[in-house]
Amino acid sequence: MTKLLVDCFGGDHSPQAPVGGALRALAANPELHLLLTGDEATLKKALEGQVYDAARLDIIHAPEVIGCDEKPTDVVRLKRNSSMMKAIMLLRDEDDITGMVSTGSTGALVTGALVRLGRIPGVIRPAFCPILPTMSGGLVGICDSGANVEVTPSHLRQFAIMASLYMEQVYGVETPRVALLNVGKEAEKGDDLRKEAYRLLQETDCIRFVGNMESRDLLSGSYDVVVADGFSGNVLVKTTEGTALELLKKLKKDIFSSMIYQLGALLMKRMFAEEKEFMNYQNYGGSVLLGTSKVVVKGHGSSKAVAVEKCIEQAWKMERGHLSERIEKAIARYEHFEE
Amino acid sequence: MTKLLVDCFGGDHSPQAPVGGALRALAANPELHLLLTGDEATLKKALEGQVYDAARLDIIHAPEVIGCDEKPTDVVRLKRNSSMMKAIMLLRDEDDITGMVSTGSTGALVTGALVRLGRIPGVIRPAFCPILPTMSGGLVGICDSGANVEVTPSHLRQFAIMASLYMEQVYGVETPRVALLNVGKEAEKGDDLRKEAYRLLQETDCIRFVGNMESRDLLSGSYDVVVADGFSGNVLVKTTEGTALELLKKLKKDIFSSMIYQLGALLMKRMFAEEKEFMNYQNYGGSVLLGTSKVVVKGHGSSKAVAVEKCIEQAWKMERGHLSERIEKAIARYEHFEE
Repeated sequence: MTKLLVDCFGGDHSPQAPVGGALRALAANPELHLLLTGDEATLKKALEGQVYDAARLDIIHAPEVIGCDEKPTDVVRLKRNSSMMKAIMLLRDEDDITGMVSTGSTGALVTGALVRLGRIPGVIRPAFCPILPTMSGGLVGICDSGANVEVTPSHLRQFAIMASLYMEQVYGVETPRVALLNVGKEAEKGDDLRKEAYRLLQETDCIRFVGNMESRDLLSGSYDVVVADGFSGNVLVKTTEGTALELLKKLKKDIFSSMIYQLGALLMKRMFAEEKEFMNYQNYGGSVLLGTSKVVVKGHGSSKAVAVEKCIEQAWKMERGHLSERIEKAIARYEHFEE
Repeated sequence: MTKLLVDCFGGDHSPQAPVGGALRALAANPELHLLLTGDEATLKKALEGQVYDAARLDIIHAPEVIGCDEKPTDVVRLKRNSSMMKAIMLLRDEDDITGMVSTGSTGALVTGALVRLGRIPGVIRPAFCPILPTMSGGLVGICDSGANVEVTPSHLRQFAIMASLYMEQVYGVETPRVALLNVGKEAEKGDDLRKEAYRLLQETDCIRFVGNMESRDLLSGSYDVVVADGFSGNVLVKTTEGTALELLKKLKKDIFSSMIYQLGALLMKRMFAEEKEFMNYQNYGGSVLLGTSKVVVKGHGSSKAVAVEKCIEQAWKMERGHLSERIEKAIARYEHFEE
């Protein structure tokens, strides 16, 4: 049995989406035991009339909710009775609980996880690793994408190792192709950080480093892992999502400008629905925080039940594959290089 | 009469595209005098049979061409007879020539321009400013997008001032809305660079600073100028172009997977053609290098004649609006703050 926590508040569709996702995950996976954190009365109401295995579902009462404009450090210090902080504290204190999923405030989750959970031995900086679908039908993980705005070459090397193991473990990618986000493909491109990171990545024999990647090639399907500082990684991921979304919106608007176009679109209805699903992050789960001592998965704030279910599945796969132990072992081989 | 140089080699469609663009610009604008640099025999051949005002077109013989994998510093030192370096040297030496357009190597152009042309008095670092179309039908300029991978808050302030004047001058945007690229909208987001830049931009009363921008909002139409360090600005622009291109490619591929879809697409043919034109950077001209003592416009390597014509038009508008003088004057007001 794998025991995971689900923070049921703080997302756009709370608590319906987290509760719904939890129930779907329980139904799909008999080896799962879930603990929902949040206001007990509200959660009981959300569960009313639902069919599920009550022996594998517990409610942990946590009456407070975190607002999206609250300062992360204040949340960690003062909101100990919030659904998120309660989950983090339980994750820290209970040996048999191995991971948590939250769709709440990213800042509070990162700060809380870093301060309260600690890191896998040897990991200098935990990092976020969201994934995006590529045009060849695969997936690409981007690490870091926002947990660390300032990094060193050693940090980037660790991101590469962690994300590589993650893509292999959770998505079955064999010897993932790892690239460094840079302003050009040539080895000598970029600032000192990129040049030194390039050298370090080349020396790291437990990963398959394939060189620099220009951001325009992210979705090409030529890469499985892209390593970046948290600032430019964040820009990379959000620009991709934003551009896709804006283009689909524009297409829709333009279609409605003409009856003929609407007729054409009617014939292509299934295709457009498929494109929309393809670009829908809800289908790909959440961003995992790689490098914390226990598994933390951050779902998008607007996650619906199916997205939360995916996040739970990710956490389960990470735990089952002993990802933390594998990361610890891989990183130990290079530890003498790190600051 | 405005005298501009057109580097006719080094692009993907050289010399046809630069020559074609030059002829179009000459025909459209009777106040333009163009000097084409490149191999004289080849250029004469490209001009054969064309109708144009020969009094406003000169050929400057430059037999060497720069390869795209040559080191910029080597080019500047050793390739003095290349079409690009010849243009840069003429631009430096001839007072009556006010600008140049090139579709050749970006690295060589930036290095050559910085080393040989020098800067507008007061400007610490010239910066690239490409533009992208927004979903509301406007344009957004991104500065810097690759000339400076490492910057300070003062640099970012200067980028803001230069790009703001540029968008106003060349595209008629009234008091452009300037945003700082960051990982979140709140003032306290990002690293020390962003926090200090935010403060500086807020104090800069000659621009209209509207706060931080998250990269997913680039195309929303809410911003006219986005200020960024060259690394993340480069990621921002190239990710947008890459995502749009990959999505259009996917759409096309998916359409061809079914007869019904093809029929639908036939009805939407004009719309798809318009979307493609909308995303086609050829329609929006080149990236200008802001802050050099004379006007430098970099066209995309794959520019066709119409794109080169746009680049020439940009250079003309910058010169006619005395952009350099306006930048010098605006920056002088804050000069005592700069390092």
